[in-house]
Amino acid sequence: MLILISNDDGINAPGLNVLRDTLESLGDVVVVAPDRPRSATGLGITIHKPLRTEEISFPDSKTKGYAVNGTPSDCVKLAIQALLPKAPDMVVSGINLGPNLGTDVLYSGTVSAALEGVINDVPSVAVSLASWESRDFSYAAGFTARFIKIVLEKGLPEETLLNVNIPVVKPGQAAPMVKITRLGKRRYENIFEKRLDPRGKVYYWMGGEVLDIHAEPDTDIATVKNGQISITPLLFDVTNHQFINMVKGWNLDTIL
Amino acid sequence: MLILISNDDGINAPGLNVLRDTLESLGDVVVVAPDRPRSATGLGITIHKPLRTEEISFPDSKTKGYAVNGTPSDCVKLAIQALLPKAPDMVVSGINLGPNLGTDVLYSGTVSAALEGVINDVPSVAVSLASWESRDFSYAAGFTARFIKIVLEKGLPEETLLNVNIPVVKPGQAAPMVKITRLGKRRYENIFEKRLDPRGKVYYWMGGEVLDIHAEPDTDIATVKNGQISITPLLFDVTNHQFINMVKGWNLDTIL
Repeated sequence: MLILISNDDGINAPGLNVLRDTLESLGDVVVVAPDRPRSATGLGITIHKPLRTEEISFPDSKTKGYAVNGTPSDCVKLAIQALLPKAPDMVVSGINLGPNLGTDVLYSGTVSAALEGVINDVPSVAVSLASWESRDFSYAAGFTARFIKIVLEKGLPEETLLNVNIPVVKPGQAAPMVKITRLGKRRYENIFEKRLDPRGKVYYWMGGEVLDIHAEPDTDIATVKNGQISITPLLFDVTNHQFINMVKGWNLDTIL
Repeated sequence: MLILISNDDGINAPGLNVLRDTLESLGDVVVVAPDRPRSATGLGITIHKPLRTEEISFPDSKTKGYAVNGTPSDCVKLAIQALLPKAPDMVVSGINLGPNLGTDVLYSGTVSAALEGVINDVPSVAVSLASWESRDFSYAAGFTARFIKIVLEKGLPEETLLNVNIPVVKPGQAAPMVKITRLGKRRYENIFEKRLDPRGKVYYWMGGEVLDIHAEPDTDIATVKNGQISITPLLFDVTNHQFINMVKGWNLDTIL
């Protein structure tokens, strides 16, 4: 079994390295990840400049690593199309520091790395630690290892990935519950902070406070708030099939 | 009526400027667009560095423009959340030089600018010229003006945008047909070209030849190939609702 690991926090991120260490027990692992943090890059790819790879070795490990000067999507594309000797059996993206929930998954580099796997017909999973403070990835990595064995056994439908958010579980602490969820909906308030530079010119920082506007009990947002593991199947066939017939009724022939 | 125009080819792109000129007849227009070409950035946003805006004026026009050192998604977010006096009635992204079809829409900056509009609850349309060579945007711009009047009248469902690809139509030429379509599926072959720099170090260019693996008659890909206008409704509620119950049946409680 060959597992490709990527992420958006960069190849040196602790969450990636705990995951690599844990998944090495399942089969061969290759890491292809950005050479620096590349959060919130969505499914952006690099077409206007060339990509460079640097081979990396990890302490006490035979796993090969490649640091790439690109986005998470670049990394997975390059791995599958150019670096790996054969298509991987699975892409695992993470473990991200911080949750990836609701509308935010559309911006997430972590989710996009998994989506790039799906676009290349490889079963893919995105994994995030539902905490911004803790660096304790060990329960999350162990759960991921057990989980992807089941995913490989059961299989995933076309254009579908699984987005997993896992709370911090300290050694000795009781295991959380697991819920299969739908995406909630998030908005941000006060997104831009306007400042003046030392020369009096305006610049804007993107930030903002989260508003969870759809966070019903069956959503990923509520599940993570309750300290549970959330698993959301995401489908990237984005045609609005139901709306096609409505638009057909608009009689657009009249405006040609 | 206030219309926000953005794109991914940059604020100086001819397709944007023909569109601006045409839409000025419908109401107030504001242009907020990247200061340089930012194709294939997906829904990437800029969170690690500040955004700058530069006010731009257009010849023979009272329309205000802002060039932003960010992605298409940054531009639309910044416009709606910080620059505009009120929410726009519509976001129109384009007119892109080159089609945006099938799987490629997930990478497209043009589509992502419209998606950012949708995320901000503004009806949004992405428009592309289905040609890489022609710079004749005039039919496409005229059609777009007539089309968005109908979109505003009919309205769009939540989380839905319309992705429009329009062929080149020369003056005097017969109007094309219009079809409401679903997304086809594209893959690329020979995606990476491996080269050596003058110092013997490897680098990769992303490129590749398109494979249209799902291009049935009701897809955007087939419709554009036939020289027709393609309109695809896209839905960005990406939960795979049907698969939720399947995953529930995996009994993940046993691996906690």
